[in-house]
Amino acid sequence: MSLGLVETSTLTIEDGIRLQSRATLRPVTVAYEIYGELNAQRDNAILVCHALSGGAHAAGCHPDATKPGWWDVMIGPGKAFDTRRYCVISSNVLGSCYGTTGPASIDPRSAQPYGSRFPVITIADIVNVQRVLLDRLGIDSLLAVAGGSMGGMQALQWAVSYPERVRGVIAIATTARHSAQQIAFDEVARRAITSDPAWNSGDYYGSRRPADGLAVARMLGHITYLSDQGMADKFGRRRCALAGDARDAPRVSTHAARAADRPPDFEVERYLHHQGQSFVRRFDANSLICLTKAMDYFDLAEGRGSLADAFTPSRARFLLLSFSSDWLYPPRQLEEVAEAIRESRRGCGVCGVASREIPSTCGHDAFLLEHAQQAPLIASFLDLCATRSVPGGTCGVHGRTSRSA
Amino acid sequence: MSLGLVETSTLTIEDGIRLQSRATLRPVTVAYEIYGELNAQRDNAILVCHALSGGAHAAGCHPDATKPGWWDVMIGPGKAFDTRRYCVISSNVLGSCYGTTGPASIDPRSAQPYGSRFPVITIADIVNVQRVLLDRLGIDSLLAVAGGSMGGMQALQWAVSYPERVRGVIAIATTARHSAQQIAFDEVARRAITSDPAWNSGDYYGSRRPADGLAVARMLGHITYLSDQGMADKFGRRRCALAGDARDAPRVSTHAARAADRPPDFEVERYLHHQGQSFVRRFDANSLICLTKAMDYFDLAEGRGSLADAFTPSRARFLLLSFSSDWLYPPRQLEEVAEAIRESRRGCGVCGVASREIPSTCGHDAFLLEHAQQAPLIASFLDLCATRSVPGGTCGVHGRTSRSA
Repeated sequence: MSLGLVETSTLTIEDGIRLQSRATLRPVTVAYEIYGELNAQRDNAILVCHALSGGAHAAGCHPDATKPGWWDVMIGPGKAFDTRRYCVISSNVLGSCYGTTGPASIDPRSAQPYGSRFPVITIADIVNVQRVLLDRLGIDSLLAVAGGSMGGMQALQWAVSYPERVRGVIAIATTARHSAQQIAFDEVARRAITSDPAWNSGDYYGSRRPADGLAVARMLGHITYLSDQGMADKFGRRRCALAGDARDAPRVSTHAARAADRPPDFEVERYLHHQGQSFVRRFDANSLICLTKAMDYFDLAEGRGSLADAFTPSRARFLLLSFSSDWLYPPRQLEEVAEAIRESRRGCGVCGVASREIPSTCGHDAFLLEHAQQAPLIASFLDLCATRSVPGGTCGVHGRTSRSA
Repeated sequence: MSLGLVETSTLTIEDGIRLQSRATLRPVTVAYEIYGELNAQRDNAILVCHALSGGAHAAGCHPDATKPGWWDVMIGPGKAFDTRRYCVISSNVLGSCYGTTGPASIDPRSAQPYGSRFPVITIADIVNVQRVLLDRLGIDSLLAVAGGSMGGMQALQWAVSYPERVRGVIAIATTARHSAQQIAFDEVARRAITSDPAWNSGDYYGSRRPADGLAVARMLGHITYLSDQGMADKFGRRRCALAGDARDAPRVSTHAARAADRPPDFEVERYLHHQGQSFVRRFDANSLICLTKAMDYFDLAEGRGSLADAFTPSRARFLLLSFSSDWLYPPRQLEEVAEAIRESRRGCGVCGVASREIPSTCGHDAFLLEHAQQAPLIASFLDLCATRSVPGGTCGVHGRTSRSA
């Protein structure tokens, strides 16, 4: 069953937010949507966190839109995030371009878009803004926080930043810190943008935008979102159909050296071009740079001794889902998270970590596509969070910090 | 022992080359080097084929150079390609920018560099130019042809294009056809170049070059040349050392949004920037586009029924080497080649295919780095090619076409 029409609300935090860099960003506006009702005990709220290019619109339909929200198959009456039972909140992240304050927002000091003056932000800052939003909504405690990819980082960060406010964490296709390879892919994407002559250090608003660079960045992203096998299944070496005879035997275009003008030879090339072009119409280059930097800086262990130490204050249950063919966020990264949480709870009796590698050929995109496999795992995890007290018990650490019912 | 000083020769094919696209390129100049002596029987010649950004200078030193050739550890007296015993020939490929005719060469019709008018070429064209070079050198038969990556494609193409002229094939870290993912990476690299405003459809000679786009293309290439594990070992999440205090706690630069101006945060970013910049100084963007298209078009099975059918005329021995962490040319691609050759020889008694996956964390770059593991395999393979007749025997197909001693 679908949620039907939904709408986006906004909240403005006039005092702004003190960032991890110690700068203050003021004011901060947050775009958010709510699906379902908060119960009388105010204990059925679930925060859903989006990935790099997502927004607050996670479920239902906007009056003017042809497509439902990005996780509509998962959120709604009778779905994994059952809105007859739970109150699901979804907000656009700080630094994005879908209603929450980001580089394209107006800087009140100059009455111009921030552009190059937008401050560095971190995943902890993003989560801090969500925390203020929940404060304003009168929600002290989350039944669960859930997300995939960058959304999964936010879910893990919640457990570390606000351990007393989270009873369940669902982190999908994500990591506790970017590897060198993940940083490297992000940096090539950023460099493609900053090499675009329209970039102008990020101050391109009101002028031509770095569209070519942003398209290249997104093309690269899409390679990393699919698996080798998935691409082989979807495109193989299929050529693009062409009017005329430019592709006759021996199957080499006579104009391939004219790369700027030529049409794509292979279907996979056409797919990437399409993805690049459609992204340019809907996303802001500064947001891509800002958010990939936040992901690259993300390291839950940093400044906390070890990853296990970072999770020690948390008494949440964890559901960690990865996908066999996801090579951008390979399953072993979440296995490391599971190990760290288990280590932090050694001696507690109950561990509270469920980690599952789901077989899929969809690569990283699987977190948005493999509903049938994810939905029952998430539904029963949420049921467990809602109906049973938080694991733990008699150990020194968790006995003392227990806030469970 | 080193070869000492060597020099590059050139041969000009005045009649030019008829290309697979049916166009004729005239004249064609080939840059090549020879290490060791051709014996009286003229049967000890080995052709060594370079990868995308390599050149004819494979071994020894040029008088003005600080570094030896790209495979110097493998070629020389007493080395895997033992120049006391074999005559090793290395030539720069058609379409490159190191002495052989390519897009930067002067088109005699216009007295200008070819640029956008350089024709589409294929791996078969590259091999055809090598064949003409060997004809002019009076070499009818190769003891072996060897190469890694794009060089390995040439080695395999030799066995298919000129089966009667090749007794041994050493193909390393390569494939018989690019997958959708391989095409996709190449297309993003090309698009980075063609998005550079200096690109001008490839007619940028005598003007500013598309250096930024070429640097981005090379940065991306380098991610695919290393393995995830190799990158983690080499760089991890290490930060760049900075003068001043810009990197103090909380470990986020306050200027990261100024991406165009900012120094790299992480060591892996600095490494990629360095690789991009040094590539721009030594390679031509049109050559990168021309050669990546040749690799993408490469498909030994195309037009030949099956991959096994493509290899049916060949009576060569094959040594196929792949590396466990090479995700750009994963080992299973060469295993498919091995299977196809075995299938083409079913019933021949002797198979003549040795396939080996070498353990390494060096990723695709392993073909240039893992000397200790490759050298003995190559040396004994060459010895086998030199001292024992070609496998085969009494089967109908191979019995008839046998040219072995």
